[in-house]
Amino acid sequence: MKARVVVTLKSGVLDPQGKAIEGALKSLGVDGVASVRQGKVFDVELAGADASAAKAQLQAACEKLLANTVIENYQIDL
Amino acid sequence: MKARVVVTLKSGVLDPQGKAIEGALKSLGVDGVASVRQGKVFDVELAGADASAAKAQLQAACEKLLANTVIENYQIDL
Repeated sequence: MKARVVVTLKSGVLDPQGKAIEGALKSLGVDGVASVRQGKVFDVELAGADASAAKAQLQAACEKLLANTVIENYQIDL
Repeated sequence: MKARVVVTLKSGVLDPQGKAIEGALKSLGVDGVASVRQGKVFDVELAGADASAAKAQLQAACEKLLANTVIENYQIDL
């Protein structure tokens, strides 16, 4: 079973990496970009076929390792 | 207009970061994870409201900066 986990910064948390990308796009001539925020994506392959068990495992993975829940949100797509 | 760009490694390209996450999850007791591949996500806010112009701009941004098209694929969700 395949799943995708997307980890993004919570709103209000500064994102200097996103700001740098924004500036770089402007200097490369890509106009019309108002703001950029960068996050992480994890494509996870799970052994079992049970969706609810998979979701619980992914939630544990996010809480323990993939996301820093103080400053980041995570979203699990099965 | 908001858009999300997801940049992932092409299949066949080694992902040591993903392998490290896989190992860390195992040692943290999260079972059933067969493989992990890490990518990047960009949440972009665009100034205009024209979807096709926005898509063209994002495509330019990906080709020029956001993705290394030799080893990475990108996907634009408007």
